[in-house]
Amino acid sequence: MTLDEFDVIRTYFKKKLKRNDILRGIGDDCALLSPPANKNLLVSTDTLNLGSHFFADTPPFDIGYKSVAVSLSDLAAMGGEPAWLLLSLTLPKIDNAWLEEFSKGLFSAMCPLNLELVGGNITKGPLAITTQILGFIPEGIILSRSGARENDLIFVTGTLGDAALALAIFNKEIDERLFSVEEIQQLKTRLFRPLPRIMEGQIISEVATSAIDLSDGLIADLQHILEQSRMGATLYLKNIPLSPQLKKIERTCQQNLVLNGGDDYELCFTLPPKQVPALMKKLVQQNLGEIRCIGKIESTLGLRITQANGLLVDFEHKGYKHF
Amino acid sequence: MTLDEFDVIRTYFKKKLKRNDILRGIGDDCALLSPPANKNLLVSTDTLNLGSHFFADTPPFDIGYKSVAVSLSDLAAMGGEPAWLLLSLTLPKIDNAWLEEFSKGLFSAMCPLNLELVGGNITKGPLAITTQILGFIPEGIILSRSGARENDLIFVTGTLGDAALALAIFNKEIDERLFSVEEIQQLKTRLFRPLPRIMEGQIISEVATSAIDLSDGLIADLQHILEQSRMGATLYLKNIPLSPQLKKIERTCQQNLVLNGGDDYELCFTLPPKQVPALMKKLVQQNLGEIRCIGKIESTLGLRITQANGLLVDFEHKGYKHF
Repeated sequence: MTLDEFDVIRTYFKKKLKRNDILRGIGDDCALLSPPANKNLLVSTDTLNLGSHFFADTPPFDIGYKSVAVSLSDLAAMGGEPAWLLLSLTLPKIDNAWLEEFSKGLFSAMCPLNLELVGGNITKGPLAITTQILGFIPEGIILSRSGARENDLIFVTGTLGDAALALAIFNKEIDERLFSVEEIQQLKTRLFRPLPRIMEGQIISEVATSAIDLSDGLIADLQHILEQSRMGATLYLKNIPLSPQLKKIERTCQQNLVLNGGDDYELCFTLPPKQVPALMKKLVQQNLGEIRCIGKIESTLGLRITQANGLLVDFEHKGYKHF
Repeated sequence: MTLDEFDVIRTYFKKKLKRNDILRGIGDDCALLSPPANKNLLVSTDTLNLGSHFFADTPPFDIGYKSVAVSLSDLAAMGGEPAWLLLSLTLPKIDNAWLEEFSKGLFSAMCPLNLELVGGNITKGPLAITTQILGFIPEGIILSRSGARENDLIFVTGTLGDAALALAIFNKEIDERLFSVEEIQQLKTRLFRPLPRIMEGQIISEVATSAIDLSDGLIADLQHILEQSRMGATLYLKNIPLSPQLKKIERTCQQNLVLNGGDDYELCFTLPPKQVPALMKKLVQQNLGEIRCIGKIESTLGLRITQANGLLVDFEHKGYKHF
């Protein structure tokens, strides 16, 4: 049976709503939503395109998952509590098997959170997925890219460079025989099913002075914080947290993946030193991932990276750029 | 000079903000917005693709204009007051001349309204534009597709079929020599620079029982109201308002454009008869366009269309479908 766009919406995307702040969901010209009092609204949009963000052989489940995860990660970087999602789907044709898997992936990324699909649209054209996420943050809290101050410490969640390592292995730039099947699987998960740091972001937002999510690479993304905060920084290369897989590869390549590899969706944030002990304690209490101090904000503009011996690293700045 | 995505944003899209409810606009992971108390939020998203919504020879100004207008029209259909816009732009390459014109068109559609661009993203891929609009409606007002009741009258704003006529002329399906240069220009404006019925929508929302914007064609869109309201209707063909251009063309073709032509972005809404005089008076007072009663909601399911002589019109239902 050939489905039209309305059948597709009904079959794959319209679910029973659980949130009681959705007055009209899918099926009208707009979603009608009731935002909570005493909270501000966070909104972000992201597009995933074939060839840039996923590939012809990427499983549709993973494309669906990632389209939500990238938006959640933007929300995490500003400390938001996810609430509502919209989806604009451009499809070359109606492919039931593809839609079945894509929608499963989409809802599986939404499922652990109190996040619901409230609207969107479907058009015909080259495969592309645009998600818009809406969430809340308590009034008075602003976690942006522009608040880093001299002597703040720079922290990251998780380990860096793993998604880029996965991509390098698939592109045959790194020999996959270095890794066990399980290790390859873990790297694939990092690339296609990133875990947005939603809970961490909310806790961090109470004390951090600035934050960004790492989507284009550590150097590229940290530069946004430095530029918007009008500050400089020194990073300590040896402090950057590495996965066991990343530790296995050659040093220059490792350094490049860690500093310039995109798609990690970890958070990078700055923190006044006196806030560190309380934040660390709170994250542990909530069973959340470790955070690691990787550098320091300085008033001297520019970014410096030092090795264990204190010498400056000669690094290239080549984070992901679309053009 | 080759611009990267960040230069593009700075050069063409970042403007000084005037609204004081934007706490963080373009340049962070999310926009941070402060919604008003006592109002609900309306959100809608639309994608325009090459080949479906615009063509290789469509001026970029018009693409920019239309990408805002289609979103505004969704908001108008629910009576919303526009506030914030996000833009996801997928570009095959950075073309300064194109971006200059596109952004001018975008801002020219936003300009008459208190609507500001608060975020978005730019990726590389086949040209596509996704806009997300956010607006408000007073608490307690819900203008959806599902509220039409027996004996409500069906109204439309403006004239119908003009955008489809413009398209038919460009596709050489209708002889352009039927029309003066000025008439062709007016039709082009209807197709590429539609005027969303924002003010009308807000006034209508106070009294209408249901509404939709006409983007896929009168029959197709009215069917959404009928299905969601579980009602039927009779339309009076002779009452449907026609432009002078549409009156010039052959009857069967005219009927098809009026009933099935898309892209008009007029509003179709239902109204209890007793509300009609007050609404008409209010629209005149505000110098807004005429509205016209074109039919009646009935409890007998299905759509009937009658001619001046009372006989039923044998019509096809072929509104715009993407697939």
